[in-house]
Amino acid sequence: MKELEDRIRRDGTVKPGNVLKVDAFLNHQCDVALFDRMGAEWAELFAGRQVDKILTIEASGIGIACCAARHFGNAPVVFAKKTRSINLDGEQYVTRIYSFTKQREFPVIVAKRFLSAGEHVLLIDDFLANGKAMHGLIEICDKAGAVIEGIGIAVEKGFQCGGKELREAGYDVESLAIVNSMDASAGTIEFA
Amino acid sequence: MKELEDRIRRDGTVKPGNVLKVDAFLNHQCDVALFDRMGAEWAELFAGRQVDKILTIEASGIGIACCAARHFGNAPVVFAKKTRSINLDGEQYVTRIYSFTKQREFPVIVAKRFLSAGEHVLLIDDFLANGKAMHGLIEICDKAGAVIEGIGIAVEKGFQCGGKELREAGYDVESLAIVNSMDASAGTIEFA
Repeated sequence: MKELEDRIRRDGTVKPGNVLKVDAFLNHQCDVALFDRMGAEWAELFAGRQVDKILTIEASGIGIACCAARHFGNAPVVFAKKTRSINLDGEQYVTRIYSFTKQREFPVIVAKRFLSAGEHVLLIDDFLANGKAMHGLIEICDKAGAVIEGIGIAVEKGFQCGGKELREAGYDVESLAIVNSMDASAGTIEFA
Repeated sequence: MKELEDRIRRDGTVKPGNVLKVDAFLNHQCDVALFDRMGAEWAELFAGRQVDKILTIEASGIGIACCAARHFGNAPVVFAKKTRSINLDGEQYVTRIYSFTKQREFPVIVAKRFLSAGEHVLLIDDFLANGKAMHGLIEICDKAGAVIEGIGIAVEKGFQCGGKELREAGYDVESLAIVNSMDASAGTIEFA
């Protein structure tokens, strides 16, 4: 998606350690008009797929998924939780993932009544790097018996293994911008 | 907002300890069509107010704020973070709040470059009970010198002190549903 690539070039910053910061428009401050156009793009890329529900993970996936849902017939958005709460009761699907950016392990929790066997699910997240978060969501879908129709990613780090592994495993992964390489000292970003 | 009250009566559940669960449509599974109509309602209630930016707090506020932003000229949404991350660098506004539902203290963090002196801000959150989260956001706006134009809340627990205190302090608080009382044994909810 050219608009997203241009925006990353303009407002993203590359930090040492392969960190790409897009917090000006994607995951701290949110450009909702851009999110809406990203949703429209995914709707084209996943045209013909049955999407009963969109599953994402807190926190950065939520805004993107909620704006995208309009383009999938206002499909309900379920966001997996990363912290336990007294509001989380009843039976739950739970797994654990390691977060590179938070540098610690998190639980990933979805209440069983919001994900059912045979439901057709689109997974959405802001970033795909090593794929840990996405594998957590897939594991939860598998436990529920839900059908994964596709995986929509805003920014994929193409030089890390996550996207490659998911595509080899047969998932339809549509990343709106794939970063092939980036250089913190020069501040340059190359897209696929 | 009658639609929200009806929905809470239909799909909300009352638990002992004054816990109102609305996770079927508001803060775990998200009804984005409802969120859109909530945004339209706030746009009417805050008509004439200048809204340069919407500020909310992760995680449950994000989807609601992003859907509402369409009705405020696609104003950027900034969500305060509750966990530190290697993606959070630069100067930050930080305060701490106690979460009743998570039963522990959290930091509330907003990068300084996403909140500026003189910016007119609408605060949005899913719940208002004792007002701890909202006071955290207000403190951050005060530190930044931002102008709080109003506070949009989905569900206010009118029998707790948060809304009363904020209104007495002069804030324009618009809650779309105000619960006056609820009874866990009977499963009943009374609205203002």
